[in-house]
Amino acid sequence: MSDEIAENGTANGDVPEIELIIKASTIDGRRKGACLFCQEYFMDLYLLAELKTISLKVTTVDMQKPPPDFRTNFEATHPPILIDNGLAILENEKIERHIMKSVPGGHNLFVQDKEVASLIENLYSKLKLVLVRKDEQKSAALRAHLGRIDALLERRGTRFLTGDTMCCFDCELMPRLQHIRVAGKYFVDFEIPTSFRALWRYMYHMYQLDAFTQSCPADQDIINHYKLQQALKMKKHEELETPTFTTSIPIDVNDSSTTE
Amino acid sequence: MSDEIAENGTANGDVPEIELIIKASTIDGRRKGACLFCQEYFMDLYLLAELKTISLKVTTVDMQKPPPDFRTNFEATHPPILIDNGLAILENEKIERHIMKSVPGGHNLFVQDKEVASLIENLYSKLKLVLVRKDEQKSAALRAHLGRIDALLERRGTRFLTGDTMCCFDCELMPRLQHIRVAGKYFVDFEIPTSFRALWRYMYHMYQLDAFTQSCPADQDIINHYKLQQALKMKKHEELETPTFTTSIPIDVNDSSTTE
Repeated sequence: MSDEIAENGTANGDVPEIELIIKASTIDGRRKGACLFCQEYFMDLYLLAELKTISLKVTTVDMQKPPPDFRTNFEATHPPILIDNGLAILENEKIERHIMKSVPGGHNLFVQDKEVASLIENLYSKLKLVLVRKDEQKSAALRAHLGRIDALLERRGTRFLTGDTMCCFDCELMPRLQHIRVAGKYFVDFEIPTSFRALWRYMYHMYQLDAFTQSCPADQDIINHYKLQQALKMKKHEELETPTFTTSIPIDVNDSSTTE
Repeated sequence: MSDEIAENGTANGDVPEIELIIKASTIDGRRKGACLFCQEYFMDLYLLAELKTISLKVTTVDMQKPPPDFRTNFEATHPPILIDNGLAILENEKIERHIMKSVPGGHNLFVQDKEVASLIENLYSKLKLVLVRKDEQKSAALRAHLGRIDALLERRGTRFLTGDTMCCFDCELMPRLQHIRVAGKYFVDFEIPTSFRALWRYMYHMYQLDAFTQSCPADQDIINHYKLQQALKMKKHEELETPTFTTSIPIDVNDSSTTE
């Protein structure tokens, strides 16, 4: 495992220790990587550690050269991986369910709010479309979606999505907003309009919170994450093709020497 | 080493066996890779093998997972590597000199022709500029250079650059023309004008020759070669940067709750 371990909360026996294994940066294996689900669960658990219902240990694993004990235990499984009392939970949905049902304090994070749930669920796929298509129509769709989130925050007047304290939806949304902000700007010069004042105020509050800043990857790691994805996708394309050899000629060659 | 070994000529003891180690495709380690110098020396030696002055053995090495004996012998050296009578020659200039001075028949390939030498020497760097800058000015410079080669071929009226038989300059030029044709078209929609009839006729003759077709990488391998170069270059950029975290806000947040 990596030597970058963030600990939070007390491990004095009163509260259970939860370990979250997250992906390391693809640039520097000691840094946090730009994995959205890793950051989301990191934030969930960080909030619980602040409330002292658990003690949190975060371990980064460099997937380009995972340590032997990681490979032995988890083979090809990618982080996030949650470990609670010797039990490893490998799938994102099961991690979420475990935090909600079994981690002390977790149920408080999982607020029921259908409006917010449906409002944020397809946001990220719009960023992906913007990065793939790179056209103004897709950028407009992403901008419009952010506008609806801005309108909800404006209307509700709360600091976070469902009230003045953070919940699971904030831990889901904010990492994605950061990717939209950093990767959108870098790859297609997309900017979140300054007219979305409620959204910016929301992000401002997030930037003050340890749960976000401790879990957030560097801009370069976010950018590199998408560059590598694009390179792999581009490579895949050629890998699937049958090799061809361009040796046709676009003109008629009337040359007596061709008959040799 | 790879199991894809092309042999040509007779190894009956009359002629020396020359081994050329070339880079494998980055898509399929059993295919030939898009390495210009590998193909150039492959063509030189193939011509000599056809003339039966040598017997040629070509070995492809997958640099993404080089076999243990390759690593033991050559460490970080990349192909092309020429092996003659137990002597390994690792540097391109020394390989060229060795073919010219020490490989039987090799001196015949090395024709003196200053006009051709200076005409072809900077062609390839113009393709690199086109791929990096992607502007019409660089494409025009590449097109103009190809036009000068077309004019020379037209004026001389010979099948190859220096006469009706191939020489070292043809082995240098043709792999680069193929990269210009395939990568230029793929990345920036660059096309060699059909008005360059002498150049197309030259390429037509090349496409009939075993020395070219046996040594030529697939279009996909040429394309993938440049994609990987670009991805590595892009990655390098972030690697050199100090990590930064975008957490500034473009608007004034006048919110009483920020003072908590």
